Amino acid sequence: MAAFKGKAVVSQSGGPTVVINASLVGVIEEAAKHAEITELLGSKHAVRGMRDNQFVKLSGLDPQMLEVLAQTPSSGLGSSRDKPDAAYCQAIFETFKKNDVKYFFYIGGNDSADTARIINEMAGQANYQMRAVHIPKTIDNDLRNNDHTPGFGSAARFVASAFMGDDLDNRSLPGVKIDVVMGRNAGFLTAASTLGRSYPDAGPHLVYCPEVPFDTKQFVQDVQAVLDRLGRCLIAVSEGISDSNKKEIAAVLVEQSGKAVERDSHGNVQLSGSGVLGDELADLVKKQVKFQGKPRVRSDTFGYLQRSFPGVNSSVDLVEAREVGRLAVRWAVQEDHSGTVLIQRASAGSYKAEFKKGKFEDVARTARHMSREFLNEKGNDTTQAWKDYALPLVGELPKITVIV
Amino acid sequence: MAAFKGKAVVSQSGGPTVVINASLVGVIEEAAKHAEITELLGSKHAVRGMRDNQFVKLSGLDPQMLEVLAQTPSSGLGSSRDKPDAAYCQAIFETFKKNDVKYFFYIGGNDSADTARIINEMAGQANYQMRAVHIPKTIDNDLRNNDHTPGFGSAARFVASAFMGDDLDNRSLPGVKIDVVMGRNAGFLTAASTLGRSYPDAGPHLVYCPEVPFDTKQFVQDVQAVLDRLGRCLIAVSEGISDSNKKEIAAVLVEQSGKAVERDSHGNVQLSGSGVLGDELADLVKKQVKFQGKPRVRSDTFGYLQRSFPGVNSSVDLVEAREVGRLAVRWAVQEDHSGTVLIQRASAGSYKAEFKKGKFEDVARTARHMSREFLNEKGNDTTQAWKDYALPLVGELPKITVIV
Repeated sequence: MAAFKGKAVVSQSGGPTVVINASLVGVIEEAAKHAEITELLGSKHAVRGMRDNQFVKLSGLDPQMLEVLAQTPSSGLGSSRDKPDAAYCQAIFETFKKNDVKYFFYIGGNDSADTARIINEMAGQANYQMRAVHIPKTIDNDLRNNDHTPGFGSAARFVASAFMGDDLDNRSLPGVKIDVVMGRNAGFLTAASTLGRSYPDAGPHLVYCPEVPFDTKQFVQDVQAVLDRLGRCLIAVSEGISDSNKKEIAAVLVEQSGKAVERDSHGNVQLSGSGVLGDELADLVKKQVKFQGKPRVRSDTFGYLQRSFPGVNSSVDLVEAREVGRLAVRWAVQEDHSGTVLIQRASAGSYKAEFKKGKFEDVARTARHMSREFLNEKGNDTTQAWKDYALPLVGELPKITVIV
Repeated sequence: MAAFKGKAVVSQSGGPTVVINASLVGVIEEAAKHAEITELLGSKHAVRGMRDNQFVKLSGLDPQMLEVLAQTPSSGLGSSRDKPDAAYCQAIFETFKKNDVKYFFYIGGNDSADTARIINEMAGQANYQMRAVHIPKTIDNDLRNNDHTPGFGSAARFVASAFMGDDLDNRSLPGVKIDVVMGRNAGFLTAASTLGRSYPDAGPHLVYCPEVPFDTKQFVQDVQAVLDRLGRCLIAVSEGISDSNKKEIAAVLVEQSGKAVERDSHGNVQLSGSGVLGDELADLVKKQVKFQGKPRVRSDTFGYLQRSFPGVNSSVDLVEAREVGRLAVRWAVQEDHSGTVLIQRASAGSYKAEFKKGKFEDVARTARHMSREFLNEKGNDTTQAWKDYALPLVGELPKITVIV
């Protein structure tokens, strides 16, 4: 099929990452190379900008500025948590037609892939010539059919570094420390807590991911055992842990303590932007674990720093995030591609990413969980297979040493 | 006075910092140069190791390992929160005599300076030839008669970077975001939140330090005004804010909401290692601030990452932390100094630190607060004087840019 001319829209959706603007810059620099793209527009605040005709021109930007933008965390175009229904998507398609938009590049997670699919299908049904490409992004690493997703490596690097430091902190002033990590229903980011362990007995000593039902009794026993052995215990807990009935542990513990559970507009317990899970787990340890009378117990909830801290990024992640942006444009213009960009891994030799064309359906809607082989049998630590998988994505971590 | 020979003890006390081991390495490398120091011992877990005769030999260490140690966060020798009384100090002095310890280097804050003073006085009263030097350290930056203290610059760099990222995050998904910063009763670290503001309307938009009594009514009005103007609001709050009766706001808000206040063994509300202050302030905003119905409100408590995150440090801070360790040894051995090492600032020209001999009393016991000139009249933002003071200590921050 011959290439066709028209404007292009690029947009960024969902939770920000440290490298999401690298993908944006990849789109910008590649679009500039193709005469088929007559103008590149950035939609402000994702679907909202597309619905409300709120665009910013992204042509002719200073190359040096683009290099700074590529390293700037969070969505430069703004983001949105709107989940567009059919009417919303129709409004977007109307805006596209009105502006002669023929190419649509959507940087986001599985929900965004589905939105791109719907708009692409609307164009098909209307015989409107258009290409839509989803560009993967999520710190949660939960897109199906991908080895990993841009944003994850840098967030994992932040988490791994944070645990290295907090382990040294907890070694210096021993006690029980609980750190709550992002990732919703996938444990990848929590598992990253172990990547910086570099000496015997280095923490975290216990790791709880959402892939394994969380048992508060077993948790207390685990903490007691580590404390008896080492005199300290550093714990990584995913914000998304839930019990065997799939009830969020944050809600379970809050209810047990007789307080009201706060839920967001979707009915979910608010996981991020609140210290409740960590505080409740700390209370549990204070009440039920014995150590020289009363153990020193603290919790930190890492929060948004994990997805937006400037200067802490994985170079592999930065490079790949930019590349998926470039490929989305090239494949749309030159190879007639509508769908997603998949990241897979060369099966032999040292780490190498392979980029492949995928269908929207390969990633849209449902999210993936972490493979069980990445967690030990008891479900409270990671395995060597996890390290082999994750370390190349995170890059070399800061060197540390211990002397006593 | 002629120099005398004997063993030396070095020790690290209180909360860890990212550069506290740089001071330790400064002591180690300088001690190796002086024949007067027959052996250098590190006491494990601060005063405990000195009381209980728990030492590690620090001579003959590999220079490359020392370079890694200098960049390793947290107290490599271990720390302690013990506040030694007279009997405890006497036990330490007995250990010193038994081991022929003639030089004592104590890396810590104002309490540690006082402990060093007491032990030094015991030696004087017993006609025991000894030199004791306090080496300054605290992320809180609250040592009197110092321009600043080692540990602060790196922690401030973490805080400034964190706010740069969180501001971009909040810009992308607008709402009210409250970040709780360490520093106990001094606002320096909270004030560091503003150092990375680099574009018009960059956050944090409101900054609350312990030096100004916190008024919850005024807080709600301030947030409402920013939200009405910008549609978003990023807020930096010190963990140590208290009301005009000096009652901690965390306690005030918890009591107002009818819950029990948890206090540590010293009777203080637990400030670090808990998300309670941020969560309570977020609840207040949710209830009392109006914005398109219900504003999106989140809080994060930065926690221990501020003092122990590897790889995020200020090079000025690293250099100075090492230098105060070196000078403590040199001055004790060659210049008969017992007391502290003060860091002051050359009054003219670009930033330059000056190191001076000080008495224990210059820093011991009481802590300093932040100068009021660093905060605006309303007490909800920093001033240009603050930037002029703090930026040289933090170093060049990551470059970012915005496009919409």
